[in-house]
Amino acid sequence: MPTQPQPARPRYQQIADELRHAIETGKFLPGAKIPGENQIMSQYEVARNTARQALAVLRDQGLTEARKGSGIYVRAFRPIRRNAVSRLSQQQWGSGKSIWAADIDDRPLTTVDVEVVEVDAPEHIAAAMKLPNRARVWRRSRTFVVEGEPVNRAVSYLPSDLVAGSRITEVDTGPGGTYARLAELGHKPIRFREEIRVRMPMPAEVEALQLPPATPVILVARTAIDESGRVVEVNEMAMNSSRYILEYDFTS
Amino acid sequence: MPTQPQPARPRYQQIADELRHAIETGKFLPGAKIPGENQIMSQYEVARNTARQALAVLRDQGLTEARKGSGIYVRAFRPIRRNAVSRLSQQQWGSGKSIWAADIDDRPLTTVDVEVVEVDAPEHIAAAMKLPNRARVWRRSRTFVVEGEPVNRAVSYLPSDLVAGSRITEVDTGPGGTYARLAELGHKPIRFREEIRVRMPMPAEVEALQLPPATPVILVARTAIDESGRVVEVNEMAMNSSRYILEYDFTS
Repeated sequence: MPTQPQPARPRYQQIADELRHAIETGKFLPGAKIPGENQIMSQYEVARNTARQALAVLRDQGLTEARKGSGIYVRAFRPIRRNAVSRLSQQQWGSGKSIWAADIDDRPLTTVDVEVVEVDAPEHIAAAMKLPNRARVWRRSRTFVVEGEPVNRAVSYLPSDLVAGSRITEVDTGPGGTYARLAELGHKPIRFREEIRVRMPMPAEVEALQLPPATPVILVARTAIDESGRVVEVNEMAMNSSRYILEYDFTS
Repeated sequence: MPTQPQPARPRYQQIADELRHAIETGKFLPGAKIPGENQIMSQYEVARNTARQALAVLRDQGLTEARKGSGIYVRAFRPIRRNAVSRLSQQQWGSGKSIWAADIDDRPLTTVDVEVVEVDAPEHIAAAMKLPNRARVWRRSRTFVVEGEPVNRAVSYLPSDLVAGSRITEVDTGPGGTYARLAELGHKPIRFREEIRVRMPMPAEVEALQLPPATPVILVARTAIDESGRVVEVNEMAMNSSRYILEYDFTS
Protein backbone atom coordinates (compact mmCIF):
# COMPACT_ATOMS: atom_id res chain seq x y z
CA MET A 1 0.00 0.00 0.00
CA PRO A 2 1.28 3.49 -0.79
CA THR A 3 2.89 5.47 2.01
CA GLN A 4 2.55 8.77 0.17
CA PRO A 5 -0.56 10.78 -0.80
CA GLN A 6 -3.32 8.40 -1.85
CA PRO A 7 -5.09 8.77 -5.17
CA ALA A 8 -8.69 9.98 -4.80
CA ARG A 9 -11.05 7.14 -3.81
CA PRO A 10 -13.31 6.12 -6.68
CA ARG A 11 -16.75 7.74 -6.59
CA TYR A 12 -18.62 4.53 -5.74
CA GLN A 13 -16.29 4.01 -2.77
CA GLN A 14 -16.97 7.53 -1.53
CA ILE A 15 -20.71 6.91 -1.73
CA ALA A 16 -20.32 3.56 0.03
CA ASP A 17 -18.24 5.29 2.73
CA GLU A 18 -21.01 7.83 3.31
CA LEU A 19 -23.71 5.21 3.51
CA ARG A 20 -21.60 3.05 5.81
CA HIS A 21 -21.01 6.03 8.07
CA ALA A 22 -24.76 6.68 8.17
CA ILE A 23 -25.30 3.04 9.21
CA GLU A 24 -22.54 3.04 11.80
CA THR A 25 -23.71 6.25 13.41
CA GLY A 26 -27.30 5.05 13.56
CA LYS A 27 -28.79 7.33 10.93
CA PHE A 28 -30.02 4.10 9.37
CA LEU A 29 -30.91 1.69 12.17
CA PRO A 30 -30.80 -2.11 11.90
CA GLY A 31 -33.73 -3.21 9.75
CA ALA A 32 -34.11 0.23 8.13
CA LYS A 33 -34.46 0.60 4.38
CA ILE A 34 -31.57 2.45 2.70
CA PRO A 35 -31.61 4.35 -0.62
CA GLY A 36 -31.80 2.15 -3.72
CA GLU A 37 -30.08 2.56 -7.08
CA ASN A 38 -32.48 5.18 -8.42
CA GLN A 39 -32.33 7.31 -5.31
CA ILE A 40 -28.51 7.18 -5.21
CA MET A 41 -28.35 8.10 -8.91
CA SER A 42 -30.36 11.26 -8.40
CA GLN A 43 -28.98 12.19 -4.98
CA TYR A 44 -25.30 11.85 -5.97
CA GLU A 45 -25.75 12.54 -9.70
CA VAL A 46 -24.02 9.35 -10.76
CA ALA A 47 -24.63 6.64 -13.35
CA ARG A 48 -26.56 3.49 -12.51
CA ASN A 49 -23.40 1.43 -12.57
CA THR A 50 -21.75 3.63 -9.94
CA ALA A 51 -24.80 3.39 -7.69
CA ARG A 52 -24.84 -0.36 -8.13
CA GLN A 53 -21.15 -0.66 -7.24
CA ALA A 54 -21.62 1.45 -4.11
CA LEU A 55 -24.46 -0.82 -2.96
CA ALA A 56 -22.38 -3.92 -3.75
CA VAL A 57 -19.65 -2.67 -1.41
CA LEU A 58 -22.11 -2.41 1.50
CA ARG A 59 -23.51 -5.84 0.72
CA ASP A 60 -20.03 -7.41 0.53
CA GLN A 61 -19.19 -5.84 3.88
CA GLY A 62 -22.18 -7.66 5.33
CA LEU A 63 -23.86 -4.39 6.30
CA THR A 64 -26.96 -4.67 4.15
CA GLU A 65 -29.15 -7.26 2.54
CA ALA A 66 -31.56 -7.14 -0.37
CA ARG A 67 -35.13 -8.31 0.06
CA LYS A 68 -36.62 -9.39 -3.23
CA GLY A 69 -38.93 -6.86 -4.80
CA SER A 70 -38.74 -4.64 -1.75
CA GLY A 71 -35.36 -2.94 -1.46
CA ILE A 72 -32.15 -2.90 0.50
CA TYR A 73 -32.10 -2.99 4.30
CA VAL A 74 -29.55 -2.62 7.08
CA ARG A 75 -28.87 -6.07 8.45
CA ALA A 76 -30.64 -6.46 11.74
CA PHE A 77 -29.00 -9.61 13.01
CA ARG A 78 -26.50 -9.15 15.85
CA PRO A 79 -23.59 -11.51 15.09
CA ILE A 80 -23.15 -14.59 17.24
CA ARG A 81 -19.93 -14.27 19.23
CA ARG A 82 -18.84 -17.87 19.42
CA ASN A 83 -16.04 -18.26 21.94
CA ALA A 84 -14.75 -21.77 21.32
CA VAL A 85 -12.83 -22.18 24.56
CA SER A 86 -15.52 -21.06 26.99
CA ARG A 87 -18.43 -22.73 25.21
CA LEU A 88 -16.61 -26.08 25.17
CA SER A 89 -15.24 -25.91 28.72
CA GLN A 90 -16.28 -28.63 31.17
CA GLN A 91 -17.88 -25.91 33.29
CA GLN A 92 -20.38 -25.51 30.48
CA TRP A 93 -21.51 -29.01 29.52
CA GLY A 94 -20.31 -30.60 32.78
CA SER A 95 -22.95 -28.59 34.63
CA GLY A 96 -25.71 -29.68 32.28
CA LYS A 97 -25.81 -26.49 30.22
CA SER A 98 -26.14 -26.37 26.46
CA ILE A 99 -22.97 -25.37 24.62
CA TRP A 100 -25.11 -23.00 22.61
CA ALA A 101 -26.27 -21.10 25.67
CA ALA A 102 -22.75 -19.62 25.80
CA ASP A 103 -23.10 -18.13 22.31
CA ILE A 104 -26.45 -16.48 22.10
CA ASP A 105 -27.37 -15.11 25.54
CA ASP A 106 -31.14 -15.24 25.73
CA ARG A 107 -31.92 -15.22 22.03
CA PRO A 108 -34.37 -17.88 20.91
CA LEU A 109 -32.68 -21.05 19.60
CA THR A 110 -34.41 -23.90 17.83
CA THR A 111 -33.10 -26.97 16.08
CA VAL A 112 -34.60 -28.18 12.82
CA ASP A 113 -33.99 -30.88 10.20
CA VAL A 114 -32.75 -33.18 12.93
CA GLU A 115 -31.68 -36.65 11.87
CA VAL A 116 -29.99 -39.23 14.09
CA VAL A 117 -29.05 -42.39 12.24
CA GLU A 118 -26.42 -45.14 12.21
CA VAL A 119 -24.36 -45.27 9.00
CA ASP A 120 -21.10 -46.59 7.58
CA ALA A 121 -18.42 -44.06 8.42
CA PRO A 122 -17.51 -41.87 5.43
CA GLU A 123 -13.89 -42.49 4.43
CA HIS A 124 -12.45 -39.26 5.88
CA ILE A 125 -14.33 -39.75 9.18
CA ALA A 126 -13.07 -43.34 9.53
CA ALA A 127 -9.55 -42.04 8.86
CA ALA A 128 -9.84 -39.25 11.46
CA MET A 129 -11.16 -41.75 14.04
CA LYS A 130 -8.68 -44.49 13.09
CA LEU A 131 -11.60 -46.85 12.51
CA PRO A 132 -11.54 -49.75 10.06
CA ASN A 133 -13.19 -49.37 6.67
CA ARG A 134 -16.98 -49.46 6.80
CA ALA A 135 -17.03 -49.15 10.61
CA ARG A 136 -20.40 -48.06 11.93
CA VAL A 137 -20.93 -44.59 13.36
CA TRP A 138 -23.89 -42.61 14.61
CA ARG A 139 -24.48 -39.48 12.58
CA ARG A 140 -26.30 -36.57 14.22
CA SER A 141 -27.38 -33.86 11.76
CA ARG A 142 -29.19 -30.68 12.73
CA THR A 143 -29.64 -27.07 11.71
CA PHE A 144 -29.46 -24.43 14.42
CA VAL A 145 -31.90 -21.56 14.05
CA VAL A 146 -31.31 -18.35 16.02
CA GLU A 147 -33.96 -15.62 16.02
CA GLY A 148 -35.72 -17.46 13.23
CA GLU A 149 -32.60 -17.64 11.03
CA PRO A 150 -30.78 -20.86 10.18
CA VAL A 151 -27.16 -20.02 11.07
CA ASN A 152 -25.36 -23.35 11.33
CA ARG A 153 -25.79 -26.82 9.82
CA ALA A 154 -23.86 -29.34 11.94
CA VAL A 155 -23.22 -33.02 11.27
CA SER A 156 -21.53 -35.01 14.07
CA TYR A 157 -20.13 -38.51 13.88
CA LEU A 158 -19.62 -40.77 16.92
CA PRO A 159 -18.27 -44.36 16.87
CA SER A 160 -21.05 -46.92 17.34
CA ASP A 161 -18.88 -49.09 19.59
CA LEU A 162 -18.73 -46.18 22.06
CA VAL A 163 -22.24 -44.78 21.98
CA ALA A 164 -24.61 -47.66 21.09
CA GLY A 165 -27.53 -47.77 23.52
CA SER A 166 -26.82 -44.33 24.99
CA ARG A 167 -28.90 -41.18 24.68
CA ILE A 168 -26.40 -39.99 22.06
CA THR A 169 -28.38 -42.16 19.64
CA GLU A 170 -31.60 -40.31 20.53
CA VAL A 171 -32.77 -36.95 19.27
CA ASP A 172 -32.65 -35.45 22.77
CA THR A 173 -29.27 -36.24 24.32
CA GLY A 174 -30.26 -34.80 27.73
CA PRO A 175 -28.66 -32.17 30.01
CA GLY A 176 -25.16 -31.11 28.90
CA GLY A 177 -25.67 -32.91 25.59
CA THR A 178 -23.35 -35.31 23.80
CA TYR A 179 -20.22 -34.37 25.76
CA ALA A 180 -21.85 -34.94 29.15
CA ARG A 181 -23.00 -38.38 27.91
CA LEU A 182 -19.54 -39.23 26.57
CA ALA A 183 -18.12 -38.36 30.00
CA GLU A 184 -20.60 -40.76 31.64
CA LEU A 185 -19.48 -43.45 29.19
CA GLY A 186 -15.86 -42.99 30.34
CA HIS A 187 -14.81 -41.01 27.28
CA LYS A 188 -14.85 -37.41 28.48
CA PRO A 189 -13.50 -35.07 25.80
CA ILE A 190 -10.45 -33.33 27.23
CA ARG A 191 -8.97 -31.82 24.08
CA PHE A 192 -10.48 -30.25 21.00
CA ARG A 193 -9.16 -29.16 17.64
CA GLU A 194 -11.15 -26.88 15.36
CA GLU A 195 -10.10 -26.60 11.72
CA ILE A 196 -11.51 -23.68 9.78
CA ARG A 197 -11.95 -23.45 6.04
CA VAL A 198 -13.83 -20.76 4.11
CA ARG A 199 -15.37 -20.82 0.65
CA MET A 200 -18.46 -19.87 -1.32
CA PRO A 201 -21.39 -22.18 -0.50
CA MET A 202 -22.58 -25.27 -2.35
CA PRO A 203 -26.23 -25.21 -3.51
CA ALA A 204 -27.25 -27.53 -0.62
CA GLU A 205 -25.69 -25.08 1.85
CA VAL A 206 -27.44 -22.11 0.25
CA GLU A 207 -30.68 -23.99 0.77
CA ALA A 208 -30.08 -25.27 4.30
CA LEU A 209 -28.88 -21.88 5.55
CA GLN A 210 -31.09 -19.72 3.29
CA LEU A 211 -27.97 -17.79 2.30
CA PRO A 212 -28.32 -14.46 0.48
CA PRO A 213 -26.00 -13.85 -2.50
CA ALA A 214 -22.31 -13.12 -1.89
CA THR A 215 -22.34 -14.84 1.51
CA PRO A 216 -19.45 -17.25 2.11
CA VAL A 217 -19.69 -20.22 4.47
CA ILE A 218 -17.32 -20.92 7.34
CA LEU A 219 -16.61 -24.64 7.63
CA VAL A 220 -15.53 -25.70 11.10
CA ALA A 221 -14.45 -29.31 11.59
CA ARG A 222 -14.09 -30.12 15.26
CA THR A 223 -12.34 -33.18 16.64
CA ALA A 224 -12.99 -34.16 20.28
CA ILE A 225 -10.33 -36.32 21.96
CA ASP A 226 -10.58 -38.28 25.22
CA GLU A 227 -7.91 -38.94 27.88
CA SER A 228 -6.62 -42.02 26.04
CA GLY A 229 -6.06 -39.94 22.89
CA ARG A 230 -9.02 -41.45 21.06
CA VAL A 231 -11.08 -39.29 18.69
CA VAL A 232 -14.59 -39.67 20.12
CA GLU A 233 -16.42 -37.21 17.88
CA VAL A 234 -15.96 -35.33 14.62
CA ASN A 235 -18.40 -32.47 14.06
CA GLU A 236 -18.56 -30.82 10.64
CA MET A 237 -20.30 -27.46 10.68
CA ALA A 238 -21.26 -25.05 7.91
CA MET A 239 -22.03 -21.55 9.14
CA ASN A 240 -23.51 -18.44 7.58
CA SER A 241 -20.39 -16.25 7.76
CA SER A 242 -22.38 -13.02 8.05
CA ARG A 243 -23.87 -14.23 11.33
CA TYR A 244 -20.71 -15.20 13.19
CA ILE A 245 -17.65 -13.86 14.91
CA LEU A 246 -15.41 -16.74 16.02
CA GLU A 247 -13.19 -16.17 19.05
CA TYR A 248 -10.23 -18.24 20.21
CA ASP A 249 -8.33 -17.55 23.43
CA PHE A 250 -5.00 -19.19 24.12
CA THR A 251 -1.75 -18.68 25.99
CA SER A 252 1.78 -18.35 24.66
CA MET B 1 -32.05 -32.50 4.91
CA PRO B 2 -34.16 -35.46 3.79
CA THR B 3 -33.76 -38.72 5.67
CA GLN B 4 -35.43 -40.81 2.97
CA PRO B 5 -34.37 -41.56 -0.63
CA GLN B 6 -32.70 -38.49 -2.10
CA PRO B 7 -33.92 -36.95 -5.34
CA ALA B 8 -31.49 -37.41 -8.25
CA ARG B 9 -28.64 -34.90 -8.10
CA PRO B 10 -28.98 -32.22 -10.76
CA ARG B 11 -26.97 -32.91 -13.91
CA TYR B 12 -24.45 -30.08 -13.31
CA GLN B 13 -23.77 -31.48 -9.84
CA GLN B 14 -23.13 -34.94 -11.28
CA ILE B 15 -20.65 -33.49 -13.75
CA ALA B 16 -18.98 -31.45 -11.00
CA ASP B 17 -18.77 -34.62 -8.88
CA GLU B 18 -17.02 -36.48 -11.69
CA LEU B 19 -14.54 -33.70 -12.30
CA ARG B 20 -13.87 -33.33 -8.58
CA HIS B 21 -13.25 -37.06 -8.32
CA ALA B 22 -10.81 -36.82 -11.24
CA ILE B 23 -8.96 -34.03 -9.40
CA GLU B 24 -8.95 -35.81 -6.05
CA THR B 25 -7.67 -39.05 -7.50
CA GLY B 26 -4.93 -37.28 -9.44
CA LYS B 27 -6.28 -37.77 -12.94
CA PHE B 28 -5.94 -33.99 -13.16
CA LEU B 29 -2.84 -32.96 -11.19
CA PRO B 30 -2.33 -29.57 -9.51
CA GLY B 31 -1.70 -27.00 -12.23
CA ALA B 32 -3.29 -29.17 -14.95
CA LYS B 33 -5.83 -27.74 -17.37
CA ILE B 34 -9.32 -29.22 -17.06
CA PRO B 35 -12.06 -29.35 -19.73
CA GLY B 36 -13.71 -26.02 -20.52
CA GLU B 37 -17.36 -25.25 -21.28
CA ASN B 38 -17.23 -26.40 -24.90
CA GLN B 39 -15.55 -29.68 -24.10
CA ILE B 40 -17.99 -30.43 -21.26
CA MET B 41 -20.94 -29.60 -23.56
CA SER B 42 -19.86 -32.13 -26.17
CA GLN B 43 -18.52 -34.77 -23.77
CA TYR B 44 -21.62 -34.85 -21.54
CA GLU B 45 -24.14 -33.68 -24.16
CA VAL B 46 -25.42 -30.81 -22.04
CA ALA B 47 -26.31 -27.17 -22.62
CA ARG B 48 -23.79 -24.40 -22.10
CA ASN B 49 -25.53 -23.27 -18.94
CA THR B 50 -25.19 -26.72 -17.38
CA ALA B 51 -21.48 -26.86 -18.24
CA ARG B 52 -21.01 -23.40 -16.78
CA GLN B 53 -22.78 -24.35 -13.54
CA ALA B 54 -20.63 -27.48 -13.17
CA LEU B 55 -17.47 -25.39 -13.54
CA ALA B 56 -18.80 -22.82 -11.07
CA VAL B 57 -19.21 -25.56 -8.44
CA LEU B 58 -15.53 -26.54 -8.76
CA ARG B 59 -14.46 -22.91 -8.59
CA ASP B 60 -16.61 -22.24 -5.52
CA GLN B 61 -15.09 -25.30 -3.85
CA GLY B 62 -11.68 -23.70 -4.36
CA LEU B 63 -10.53 -26.62 -6.53
CA THR B 64 -9.94 -24.72 -9.76
CA GLU B 65 -9.08 -21.27 -10.97
CA ALA B 66 -9.59 -19.53 -14.27
CA ARG B 67 -6.64 -17.93 -16.04
CA LYS B 68 -7.78 -15.17 -18.34
CA GLY B 69 -7.90 -16.15 -21.98
CA SER B 70 -6.30 -19.50 -21.28
CA GLY B 71 -8.71 -21.84 -19.51
CA ILE B 72 -9.44 -23.47 -16.19
CA TYR B 73 -6.75 -25.11 -14.09
CA VAL B 74 -6.52 -27.24 -10.96
CA ARG B 75 -5.31 -25.03 -8.15
CA ALA B 76 -1.69 -25.82 -7.45
CA PHE B 77 -1.25 -24.10 -4.12
CA ARG B 78 -1.04 -26.36 -1.07
CA PRO B 79 -3.04 -24.61 1.67
CA ILE B 80 -1.16 -23.07 4.56
CA ARG B 81 -2.02 -24.96 7.76
CA ARG B 82 -1.84 -22.20 10.30
CA ASN B 83 -1.87 -23.64 13.81
CA ALA B 84 -2.42 -20.59 16.02
CA VAL B 85 -1.35 -22.16 19.29
CA SER B 86 1.95 -23.67 18.18
CA ARG B 87 3.01 -20.76 15.94
CA LEU B 88 2.45 -18.27 18.77
CA SER B 89 4.00 -20.35 21.55
CA GLN B 90 7.01 -18.93 23.40
CA GLN B 91 9.00 -21.90 22.13
CA GLN B 92 8.64 -20.40 18.67
CA TRP B 93 9.45 -16.70 19.00
CA GLY B 94 11.30 -17.11 22.34
CA SER B 95 13.96 -19.12 20.53
CA GLY B 96 14.40 -16.50 17.82
CA LYS B 97 12.32 -18.28 15.17
CA SER B 98 9.87 -16.55 12.87
CA ILE B 99 6.22 -17.24 13.66
CA TRP B 100 5.74 -17.90 9.97
CA ALA B 101 8.27 -20.71 9.91
CA ALA B 102 5.68 -22.79 11.78
CA ASP B 103 3.14 -22.38 8.97
CA ILE B 104 4.88 -22.98 5.72
CA ASP B 105 7.66 -25.54 6.27
CA ASP B 106 10.37 -24.72 3.78
CA ARG B 107 8.28 -22.86 1.25
CA PRO B 108 9.70 -19.51 0.15
CA LEU B 109 8.31 -16.56 2.11
CA THR B 110 8.82 -12.91 1.29
CA THR B 111 7.36 -9.75 2.70
CA VAL B 112 6.33 -6.86 0.46
CA ASP B 113 4.62 -3.47 0.74
CA VAL B 114 6.21 -3.01 4.15
CA GLU B 115 5.48 0.23 5.94
CA VAL B 116 6.43 1.06 9.54
CA VAL B 117 5.15 4.42 10.69
CA GLU B 118 3.95 6.23 13.80
CA VAL B 119 0.32 7.39 13.60
CA ASP B 120 -2.60 8.49 15.75
CA ALA B 121 -4.36 5.34 16.92
CA PRO B 122 -7.55 4.65 14.94
CA GLU B 123 -10.56 4.85 17.25
CA HIS B 124 -11.19 1.10 17.53
CA ILE B 125 -7.50 0.41 18.20
CA ALA B 126 -7.34 3.05 20.94
CA ALA B 127 -10.46 1.48 22.47
CA ALA B 128 -9.00 -2.06 22.35
CA MET B 129 -5.78 -0.82 23.95
CA LYS B 130 -7.54 1.43 26.47
CA LEU B 131 -5.47 4.36 25.20
CA PRO B 132 -6.65 7.99 25.30
CA ASN B 133 -8.01 9.57 22.13
CA ARG B 134 -5.33 10.41 19.57
CA ALA B 135 -2.68 8.40 21.43
CA ARG B 136 0.29 7.58 19.24
CA VAL B 137 0.93 4.04 18.04
CA TRP B 138 3.40 2.40 15.70
CA ARG B 139 1.71 0.79 12.72
CA ARG B 140 3.48 -2.08 10.96
CA SER B 141 1.89 -3.04 7.63
CA ARG B 142 3.12 -5.84 5.40
CA THR B 143 1.94 -8.36 2.85
CA PHE B 144 3.18 -11.94 3.21
CA VAL B 145 3.96 -13.71 -0.05
CA VAL B 146 4.26 -17.51 -0.07
CA GLU B 147 5.48 -19.28 -3.20
CA GLY B 148 5.09 -16.03 -5.09
CA GLU B 149 1.46 -15.53 -3.99
CA PRO B 150 0.31 -12.76 -1.66
CA VAL B 151 -1.68 -14.66 0.97
CA ASN B 152 -2.00 -12.31 3.94
CA ARG B 153 -2.05 -8.56 4.44
CA ALA B 154 -1.31 -7.78 8.10
CA VAL B 155 -1.44 -4.44 9.91
CA SER B 156 -0.18 -4.38 13.52
CA TYR B 157 -0.51 -1.59 16.04
CA LEU B 158 1.76 -1.17 19.07
CA PRO B 159 1.56 1.65 21.67
CA SER B 160 4.33 4.24 21.16
CA ASP B 161 4.90 4.58 24.90
CA LEU B 162 5.94 0.91 24.97
CA VAL B 163 7.95 0.50 21.79
CA ALA B 164 9.53 3.90 21.00
CA GLY B 165 13.25 3.51 20.29
CA SER B 166 13.08 -0.29 19.99
CA ARG B 167 13.60 -2.41 16.87
CA ILE B 168 9.81 -2.76 16.69
CA THR B 169 9.90 0.65 15.02
CA GLU B 170 12.31 -0.64 12.36
CA VAL B 171 11.48 -2.71 9.29
CA ASP B 172 13.58 -5.65 10.54
CA THR B 173 12.55 -6.41 14.12
CA GLY B 174 15.31 -9.01 14.58
CA PRO B 175 15.30 -12.69 15.70
CA GLY B 176 11.94 -13.83 17.08
CA GLY B 177 10.33 -10.65 15.78
CA THR B 178 8.01 -8.24 17.58
CA TYR B 179 7.06 -10.63 20.40
CA ALA B 180 10.69 -11.37 21.33
CA ARG B 181 11.32 -7.59 21.46
CA LEU B 182 8.19 -6.99 23.57
CA ALA B 183 9.50 -9.63 26.00
CA GLU B 184 12.84 -7.78 26.26
CA LEU B 185 10.92 -4.59 26.99
CA GLY B 186 9.20 -6.30 29.94
CA HIS B 187 5.89 -6.81 28.12
CA LYS B 188 6.00 -10.44 27.06
CA PRO B 189 2.71 -11.51 25.47
CA ILE B 190 1.30 -14.33 27.58
CA ARG B 191 -2.26 -14.48 26.25
CA PHE B 192 -3.75 -14.07 22.80
CA ARG B 193 -7.25 -13.72 21.43
CA GLU B 194 -7.98 -14.20 17.75
CA GLU B 195 -11.33 -12.98 16.41
CA ILE B 196 -12.37 -14.28 13.03
CA ARG B 197 -14.76 -12.65 10.59
CA VAL B 198 -15.43 -13.67 7.00
CA ARG B 199 -16.82 -11.68 4.08
CA MET B 200 -16.33 -10.91 0.41
CA PRO B 201 -13.29 -8.67 -0.15
CA MET B 202 -13.13 -4.91 -0.54
CA PRO B 203 -11.50 -3.65 -3.77
CA ALA B 204 -8.29 -2.78 -1.86
CA GLU B 205 -8.11 -6.36 -0.58
CA VAL B 206 -8.70 -7.80 -4.04
CA GLU B 207 -5.74 -5.73 -5.19
CA ALA B 208 -3.37 -6.39 -2.27
CA LEU B 209 -4.01 -10.15 -2.32
CA GLN B 210 -4.59 -10.48 -6.08
CA LEU B 211 -7.80 -12.36 -5.33
CA PRO B 212 -9.56 -14.30 -8.08
CA PRO B 213 -13.36 -13.95 -8.33
CA ALA B 214 -15.58 -15.67 -5.74
CA THR B 215 -12.79 -15.74 -3.15
CA PRO B 216 -13.80 -14.54 0.33
CA VAL B 217 -11.34 -13.05 2.80
CA ILE B 218 -10.76 -14.28 6.34
CA LEU B 219 -10.24 -11.37 8.72
CA VAL B 220 -8.30 -12.31 11.83
CA ALA B 221 -7.91 -9.65 14.53
CA ARG B 222 -5.38 -10.75 17.12
CA THR B 223 -4.95 -9.13 20.53
CA ALA B 224 -1.74 -9.83 22.47
CA ILE B 225 -1.87 -9.33 26.25
CA ASP B 226 0.99 -9.12 28.73
CA GLU B 227 1.21 -10.36 32.35
CA SER B 228 -0.30 -7.14 33.71
CA GLY B 229 -3.34 -7.58 31.44
CA ARG B 230 -2.32 -4.80 29.09
CA VAL B 231 -3.06 -5.11 25.36
CA VAL B 232 0.41 -4.70 23.82
CA GLU B 233 -0.47 -5.37 20.18
CA VAL B 234 -3.48 -5.57 17.89
CA ASN B 235 -2.82 -7.24 14.54
CA GLU B 236 -5.49 -7.04 11.84
CA MET B 237 -5.01 -9.57 9.06
CA ALA B 238 -6.83 -10.15 5.78
CA MET B 239 -6.18 -13.57 4.27
CA ASN B 240 -6.94 -15.20 0.94
CA SER B 241 -9.39 -17.83 2.23
CA SER B 242 -8.53 -20.32 -0.51
CA ARG B 243 -4.92 -20.47 0.75
CA TYR B 244 -5.55 -21.19 4.42
CA ILE B 245 -6.71 -23.79 6.88
CA LEU B 246 -6.81 -22.31 10.39
CA GLU B 247 -6.29 -24.68 13.31
CA TYR B 248 -7.02 -24.08 16.97
CA ASP B 249 -6.17 -26.59 19.72
CA PHE B 250 -7.61 -26.20 23.19
CA THR B 251 -8.60 -28.21 26.24
CA SER B 252 -11.99 -28.62 27.86
